[in-house]
Amino acid sequence: MLSDEAIDTIKWSKDGLIPAIVQDANTKDVLMMAYMNAEALKRTLEKGETVFWSRSRKTFWHKGETSGNIQKVQEIRIDCDADTLLILVEAAGPACHTGQTHCFYRTLGEFEENPVRE
Amino acid sequence: MLSDEAIDTIKWSKDGLIPAIVQDANTKDVLMMAYMNAEALKRTLEKGETVFWSRSRKTFWHKGETSGNIQKVQEIRIDCDADTLLILVEAAGPACHTGQTHCFYRTLGEFEENPVRE
Repeated sequence: MLSDEAIDTIKWSKDGLIPAIVQDANTKDVLMMAYMNAEALKRTLEKGETVFWSRSRKTFWHKGETSGNIQKVQEIRIDCDADTLLILVEAAGPACHTGQTHCFYRTLGEFEENPVRE
Repeated sequence: MLSDEAIDTIKWSKDGLIPAIVQDANTKDVLMMAYMNAEALKRTLEKGETVFWSRSRKTFWHKGETSGNIQKVQEIRIDCDADTLLILVEAAGPACHTGQTHCFYRTLGEFEENPVRE
């Protein structure tokens, strides 16, 4: 699935994570960013759907498992120094828990006018 | 420029950083990901060009200062829980130090065949 050598070469953070940018394969919108550990990446490859590691809940998070808004993986890319993933997906529904298509629905200016975390 | 309240609401990492995804405003390609601290974000807003914090070199990094490949900021977006930035730019040249247009030039499969950090 993923060789031990490749897993070892990936530059995991101190916490054993890698940030994964999720991009819509059709619209090219950046939908969200989340984190994977090696096991989440393996599960993503096995399922063909995104599985992340939730840093706050300390559990695996199969995106869309409860909402139905799964993300079907079309391609996984890795950057030059192997410390960031870019995952191209077909999204079954909104990526954001707020119901928005993607999580980046506010400009920094809008955020500044109403600085809240949602 | 950026209110203290907004700066305080941004969910900085323990190291005082926020990941910044850089996307080409025209092609919508994801070019790279790098990190900003509050001062790098302020300098980015002031200059209208991306300025990051280099975690390895522990210095500010005005993208393109030596290569000429600056990134003119068109828009900065922030995600729902305020822990990731998405920066739309006009790029004067390749984003990647390898000379590639963007840093995500390898699929995970290609990386697995030849796992190197560049």
